[in-house]
Formats: sequence, structure tokens, C-alpha cells
Amino acid sequence: MWTRRVGFGGRASDTQRRTSPTCTPGVTLNKYGLCVTNLQDLLPAKNGEEPTIQFLLEVVDILTNYVRKTFDRSTKVLDFHHPHQLLEGMEGFNLELSDQPESLEQILVDCRDTLKYGVRTGHPRFFNQLSTGLDIIGLAGEWLTSTANTNMFTYEIAPVFVLMEQLTLKKMREIVGWPNGEGDGIFSPGGAISNMYSVMVARYKHYPEVKTKGMTAAPRLVLFTSEHSHYSIKKASAVLGFGTENLILLKTDERGRVIPADLEAKVIDAKQKGCVPLFVNATAGSTVYGAFDPINEIADICEKYNMWLHVDGAWGGGLLMSRKHRHKLNGVERANSVTWNPHKMMGVPLQCSAILVREKGLLQGCNSMCAGYLFQPDKQYDVTYDTGDKAIQCGRHVDIFKFWLMWKAKGTSGFEKHIDRCLELSEYLYNKIKNREGYEMVFQGQPQHTNVCFWYIPPSLRDMPDREEKRQRLHKVAPKIKAMMMECGTTMVGYQPQGDKVNFFRMVISNPAATRSDIDFLIDEIERLGQDL
Amino acid sequence: MWTRRVGFGGRASDTQRRTSPTCTPGVTLNKYGLCVTNLQDLLPAKNGEEPTIQFLLEVVDILTNYVRKTFDRSTKVLDFHHPHQLLEGMEGFNLELSDQPESLEQILVDCRDTLKYGVRTGHPRFFNQLSTGLDIIGLAGEWLTSTANTNMFTYEIAPVFVLMEQLTLKKMREIVGWPNGEGDGIFSPGGAISNMYSVMVARYKHYPEVKTKGMTAAPRLVLFTSEHSHYSIKKASAVLGFGTENLILLKTDERGRVIPADLEAKVIDAKQKGCVPLFVNATAGSTVYGAFDPINEIADICEKYNMWLHVDGAWGGGLLMSRKHRHKLNGVERANSVTWNPHKMMGVPLQCSAILVREKGLLQGCNSMCAGYLFQPDKQYDVTYDTGDKAIQCGRHVDIFKFWLMWKAKGTSGFEKHIDRCLELSEYLYNKIKNREGYEMVFQGQPQHTNVCFWYIPPSLRDMPDREEKRQRLHKVAPKIKAMMMECGTTMVGYQPQGDKVNFFRMVISNPAATRSDIDFLIDEIERLGQDL
Repeated sequence: MWTRRVGFGGRASDTQRRTSPTCTPGVTLNKYGLCVTNLQDLLPAKNGEEPTIQFLLEVVDILTNYVRKTFDRSTKVLDFHHPHQLLEGMEGFNLELSDQPESLEQILVDCRDTLKYGVRTGHPRFFNQLSTGLDIIGLAGEWLTSTANTNMFTYEIAPVFVLMEQLTLKKMREIVGWPNGEGDGIFSPGGAISNMYSVMVARYKHYPEVKTKGMTAAPRLVLFTSEHSHYSIKKASAVLGFGTENLILLKTDERGRVIPADLEAKVIDAKQKGCVPLFVNATAGSTVYGAFDPINEIADICEKYNMWLHVDGAWGGGLLMSRKHRHKLNGVERANSVTWNPHKMMGVPLQCSAILVREKGLLQGCNSMCAGYLFQPDKQYDVTYDTGDKAIQCGRHVDIFKFWLMWKAKGTSGFEKHIDRCLELSEYLYNKIKNREGYEMVFQGQPQHTNVCFWYIPPSLRDMPDREEKRQRLHKVAPKIKAMMMECGTTMVGYQPQGDKVNFFRMVISNPAATRSDIDFLIDEIERLGQDL
Repeated sequence: MWTRRVGFGGRASDTQRRTSPTCTPGVTLNKYGLCVTNLQDLLPAKNGEEPTIQFLLEVVDILTNYVRKTFDRSTKVLDFHHPHQLLEGMEGFNLELSDQPESLEQILVDCRDTLKYGVRTGHPRFFNQLSTGLDIIGLAGEWLTSTANTNMFTYEIAPVFVLMEQLTLKKMREIVGWPNGEGDGIFSPGGAISNMYSVMVARYKHYPEVKTKGMTAAPRLVLFTSEHSHYSIKKASAVLGFGTENLILLKTDERGRVIPADLEAKVIDAKQKGCVPLFVNATAGSTVYGAFDPINEIADICEKYNMWLHVDGAWGGGLLMSRKHRHKLNGVERANSVTWNPHKMMGVPLQCSAILVREKGLLQGCNSMCAGYLFQPDKQYDVTYDTGDKAIQCGRHVDIFKFWLMWKAKGTSGFEKHIDRCLELSEYLYNKIKNREGYEMVFQGQPQHTNVCFWYIPPSLRDMPDREEKRQRLHKVAPKIKAMMMECGTTMVGYQPQGDKVNFFRMVISNPAATRSDIDFLIDEIERLGQDL
């Protein structure tokens, strides 16, 4: 049995270097003040308990230090280096693998270096991705998940996690608005795969023979999605054998929302060409503009032409948790399937994405192959809980626990507060810059989601006529500012072109650590770095 | 700044209950001896550092206790309950989610209960899956990965992990035997997805127009795999639009290895029927028998008929690390693609699976969609390091770090030792039971991998004539013994039927904690539970 000791031997934090850590007998103190053990002393070695706990606590000391600093605004968001610099080995940080083992002491140094040269995605001023923030409960959940190290395919080896997934999916379906939360679903390794599931299930529903006979058994099927939708719909059309040319892009209004009349016109056109319209994706929260397609109007058209309606709420699904904002997804209950990524707007650590399907049995029918070695029908428990055969995966990572634990800790009401707060913050940013000198909004009016899209126009460009030269120069502004931000390490925000629009900033807020002062900081930083461009 | 205190406030371990944990001011001590904080006190709250570290250390205390007990043979492998029992709420363990938050104290109890009712996949007597064991370095790696909470799609936000992935894939390709480790690859969410990649890339290589025009642009393509191969090849043929009927199953010898002549005959037959043979999967380490298909002979046929050769080494790939056993994959260097799951035979925590592709550029060509918001060409660094567009995913979990860290800590030589040891143990089991009364081997001769497949024949069946009645009764033996094992919680081992063979046990060893005494225990336990059946 191990007993906890005073000073468990972690490296002294930067501000407090202890003078006499106490090491266990057999564990030696090195020049860095670490109590190091050898790999061979760790479990499953005999008497390996103490050195193992010791080692894990050393690691935890590094991690908790990292967590502490991540939330500290005086810490850099990143310490940028080019690939060749890291490959050459920064201050002895050697990425190469070798035949012989390193000491555990070196392993701890490697851990510290890995974090040092990484990017602090939980930093209050990291706005670069839709997934930001570092939720402490979610983090604890992931640590536990790693420790349990099991697999979702059967109840047999993941009884608790399988049930948590089932209950959580039901809750999500209730929130979508399907009666009694009926239906089906599964957690998948990200929104792209969830969207791929939706196309697969739609195909299976309308042309089940494709499973056995292949795409040649079906007529020429076409899919529809907005030109602003996520590229995963296009990936799915390539992967599943539809072909990207059979994905028809829909026009949007200037806010990035699908124009329903364009959908109907294109459906009629496709039918006239002998194609069969199968599937429509409506985006709830587009990646760049944060736009919500008008689901109800799209659903009307889907019903009229017997098409599968999928709602890609990877980014916007979280708004369903907010009484104030869920109206933006009105009509979602009419969808046949919904993608919803808790790892985006709900702050759950990566990865956590759900595909929800209204009709029960389709996922199973579409994907089951009845592998005898895994899904034995003659087990002693109710094997309908063995959900693995619904998946396109065999082994499946446990993505549910961190989410379940966060839901327990926050309650539905806690997620609602988080979402309302992020939307308030983005409103603050929008109001701050919409009439500010040097800024131009990419689209007019208050954003529907937390996406605020804007150009920063340096003083040297402000009086230029709106011609190609200005466009070309403006196109280079965001990349330049972004590069300087990264080199300074002060903040990170995304940019991209869209259609005929030159590079603009896309600011998104999903980080619970962000405050108005961080928004102010971002704007100050853009102006500081961009004023002389 | 936080300072570490004496007694950081974890619940006393089962054997040592401290009497006076010291809580931080503002943090209260509850009846369980926990220093509890409120969710609102955790970071990003003001002065949230201390309560946050406190809370995380409480969680770590639960986790290290779990680790310690997992390696203790007096601990049960599992505490089995039926789904309805867990759903009803075991001793107050309530899986339902609610609107209102729970206390952090309750969250810690939930964590403990989650582990209590789960399955200890790291236990020395857990033999149920190909992935077993709990590697301490890998565990530390996963904890760090969760803390970094980033995403593999760009160098921008995962610089260190992206480089680690690149270097590790190169090393794996060198070990496969491709000159200078040239080629391509990616880590995917499991072997089934890796195998799917191989079929996609094969299709893209031979019929690149399928990406844009769909499967109808290609002739009728057929795929080949052994009847013993993993079901993911069949899943891939359904998902990708080939249709499962266009996957042709190959006969095997009695050891489960593909008969090359059967492949050639079926290729000729398919061509005569107007089909185009595209892809052959050779399994290196089949799921049930652990069989290695003869890669060189299959490669000859693939070259002759211009077919893509994929080697599914999800389970057997690890043997490439062993000088003694890698000959079983002779010819693997002739493959066009290889699946290799370090999370199986190499003991890396779930999930960790690589798809390796010999020809550079195919993964990118096959999957890239050039999303402007993510893969900007005008970044300040060398954007060839932005590997995300090669994936069918968008966001991608960091699966590399734990593996990289284990490789650093063990060296190539450490993996070799582990693999040799597991194969020795399975040889011990084979020798122990091959002539033992009451046992019958499913196939004759020493297994190629650690899979030992056998029937246990209870005394009541031993003198029965080999007729249908005996078969039917024998079919029920393994499920009954397995059910009793699970209810006793003493050990776990898999069983399944295969072809016309009734249920038999499949013992596999990948757990570094297992010893000969655990093998002896398993056999004793089978006999104890099975003798009166």
C-alpha cells in the first residue's frame, strides 16, 4: 500500500522551488529536483505502486502548472517556431525516436517541452477555432476516460459508458424536439464523420440495396448543400461514391443563408436531367458566417420532393440549449438527422460529436455486419445494448464521459448560461467595431451566432478607391496581422477568403474564459500590428 | 500563485484515512473528508487556481487509486451488473442528466462510481480483447493530450503533435521496409477507418474520376479478402458504395490463412464476368485465429493482375517490431498500404491506429477539398505541414502523443521485448493445454500470433459421440463459462463461433501485466466453472 507523503516530488513550480523533496527509498533525486524512477520500476513491476504513483504525480504537477498558466493572461498563447526549427531540436527537445529507451527524467522533460512549444487552446485570448477553452470538469473527465482505457463497442467492456451514451443521446433528441426523445444516434470521431453518417443513412433509407449491390444499383443520386456549408458534405459525397459533381451547391443570401427558392429550382432541374434528389443538408451555424439556414422552409421542400433532411448543427447545435437562441434552429425537429458537436459551442474537450437519427433501426440496418467474435447473440445480458455494430468503426473511443460529467456538473442550465454569455460577448464585439474607423463588416446586421466577420483596413488603404489594387492589398492584411500575432504569441484569430471576398477575420467565441477585456485586447492588437501595413 | 500544501485534500485511500486534511480558506471540508469547492470557484473564476488544482488533485487521487488496484490481482476484473440494474441506480449512482448542477463533491462520487461499475481492461487477468493493459507512460501521455486539448488539422494549432506524427509515421514506414521510410500516412480513429482509407486510396489510384463523378464512372469493381478477415473490409465495401456483394471472400487453409490459388482463381472468374479486380486485403494477424496470410504469394498475384495490395496489420503489425517474429509479415514491403494499430499489440492506450500508404500524394489527392477557412495557402509557415486535408475527418483527435512518448520511454527495443514476451506467454498456454484432458484445439500446430483458440469440453461431454447433440451442447459451454466468469468478476476471455465451428474460446495476450500465473489462473477458472456443465 502506498502512503502519501509530504512533498510528493514534483518539480518545484516556477515561483517556488522546494529545497528538500522527499523521495521514496529506491527513488533518487536528480539535479533538477525530480524524484526519478526507472521505467522498469513502474507497474506492472513488483512493488511498482509507489514509483508509479510518484511518476504520475510528477506528470500531474506539470499538467496543473500548464493549466494554471493557460488561464493567466500574462502567459503567451503560443511560442511560435517554424517546422524546421522544431525539427532541428529546440534547446535539446529532440523529436526523433530511437532504439534505446530514454530515462523517465527525460520523459518528464519531453512532456514539459511538448507543452511549451504547443498552442494554449484554452487561453482566454485563443479565438482561432470553433473549439476553444479548457473546461476543468471536462478535463477531469478525459483523465478518467484515459485511465479506464476501454472501448465503446459492447456493454460487456464498457457498461457504464454505453448507458451514459444512450441516456445522453436521448436527452439530446428530446432537446431537438423529437417526441419522447425517440430515435437513434451515436457519438462519432467528429462532425465530418457525423455528417457522413447522415448521407449514408439517407442512402440506406431510400436505396437499401446499395449496401449489398453498390452505388450502381441506384439511379443517379444528387445531394444539396449551401455554398457556405462545411466541406465535410463534399468529402462525404466523394468518399461514399456519389461524386462531388453530384453535390449541388445552393445559393445563399448575403448573410450566408440558403435561399429556399434556389433549392426548389435546383431540385426540379435535377429531376428534369434524370437525377434523383436524395438528400439536403441545412446548416445550423455555418463555419465562417455562423449562418442558420431556414430549416422550416427547407423541410417543406424536402417533404414535397421526398428528400432526406439533415441539419448540420456541428457548430450551431449548442444553441438548442438556450431558450433565448434556440429559435434560430426552428424546424430542426423536422430533420431526419442532426449533427451536433458538444466539443464546439458547449466547450467539451475534443472529440465529442453526435449524429442523431430520427428513425430507429436505420443506423443498425445500414452498418451492421454481425461480427461473431464481438457481437455474440448468446451473452447473458440484453445484447441490444451492444451498439458497436451501428458504427462504421469497430473500436470506438469513449467520447461520452467528459460530456456526461460536464452535464452533471453544470446542469442544462449551466450550458445555457455559457451559450448566452458567448453570444453576448460577440454582440459586444459587433457593436464595438460595426461603426469603428478602419473596420468593415463582411455582412450587415447582427450575426446569428458568435461569428463576427470583418476586415481591418489599415490607414494606408482607407482612402484608396475600391478597385482591384485595394482588394489585392487588403487580401494580404489579415495574413500579415495573423503572422505577427503568432510570432508575438499574444492572441490568435482565424481568417479566410470566402467566394469573391478577400481575406477577412472570422472572430468566434466559445471560450468560457474570454471576457470583454479580451475582446478589447484583440481589437487593440489588430490595430497595433496592422496600423502600418 | 498557488503553493502546494501538506495533504492536498484527496479522500483518504481505503487503507489510510487521514484525520485532518487541510483545506484552503473558502474551501470547506465535508463529511467524507473531502475538501470541496464549487463549480463557480474553478477556473476561469477569479482566484480559481487553487480550487482548480485542488479539484484536479482530488480526481487524480481517485485515478491513482484505480490504477493501483487494477494491477492488484485481489481486485476483481469487473463488478458485473445488468443494464437494467445500472439504469435503476446502483447505491445512488444516478446516470440521468438534469437541468440543475450537481455539487463538485457529487461529481467526485460520480467519478468513483463510474470506475467502480466499469471493467478493468488493464487487469492482469483481462484477456477479452486485442487491446488490453494499462501502460503508465501511455496513460501519462493521454493525460497530457487531454490537457493540451488541440486538434491535428493544422501545424498552426498543433505544431509539436503534427511533427511527432510525421516522424513516427516515417519510422513505421521504415520498419515496414519502404525505402527511406518514404510514403505517406495518417493516424485514424481505429483500424476499421484505416482499412476504409486503404480501399478509398486504391479506388482513387485506379479510378480518380470516382471522386468527382461517383462510382457509376467506374466499371464494376471487386475487392478480395479472406473469409477470416476483419469485418471492417466488408463495412468499407458497403460504406464506399462498392456493395458487399462485390467483396469476394477467399478460402483459407485450416489455420485461417488465405489460399493464394483461390485468390487467383477468383480474380480470373471475376474478370470473365466482366468485373474489374481492384483491391486485395491480406490480413497480418487475423482477429480470431491470429493467422498471417502469405503476403509474398498474394503480392505476386496482385502484381500480375494490377491490383492494389493492402495489408491489414491492425493486430499483427506490432510483430514488425520483433526481429524474431517479423518474418510472419514477409512481403509487407510490397504492399501498397498497411494498417497498423499500436493500440493493440503494442499496448498503446485507445485510440491509436495508423494507415500507411506507399505512394506519396494519394491520400491528399483522394481526400483534399481545400477548405479556405482552415488551409489558407498564405500562412507564414510551410503549409505542407497542414496535413488535415488528407483526412476524411475535419477535426482529428491527437492520437500520436501517447505513442510517441511510449516509444521514447521504451525505445524500439522495449516494444520488441514486450512483443516477444507476449508470444512466449501464448506459447506457454498452447503447450499447457494442447494435450490436456478436456481441451481441444480449434486448429493444430503452434499459433502464429498470441491467439490460442480452443474448446473446453466438460467431463459430461467427453465421452459423447461426435454428433449434432454434442455440437449443440458444446456450443453452449463457452457462453456459460464466460457468463459465470463475468458474474464472479475473476477473469475475462472472448469466445465466438467461426464458420461451421461451434463457440470456442479465443485467448489473446497483449497485456504486459500478464504472467504465467495468470494463464494458470485462467485455465483453473475455466475448469472450476465448467466442470459440472
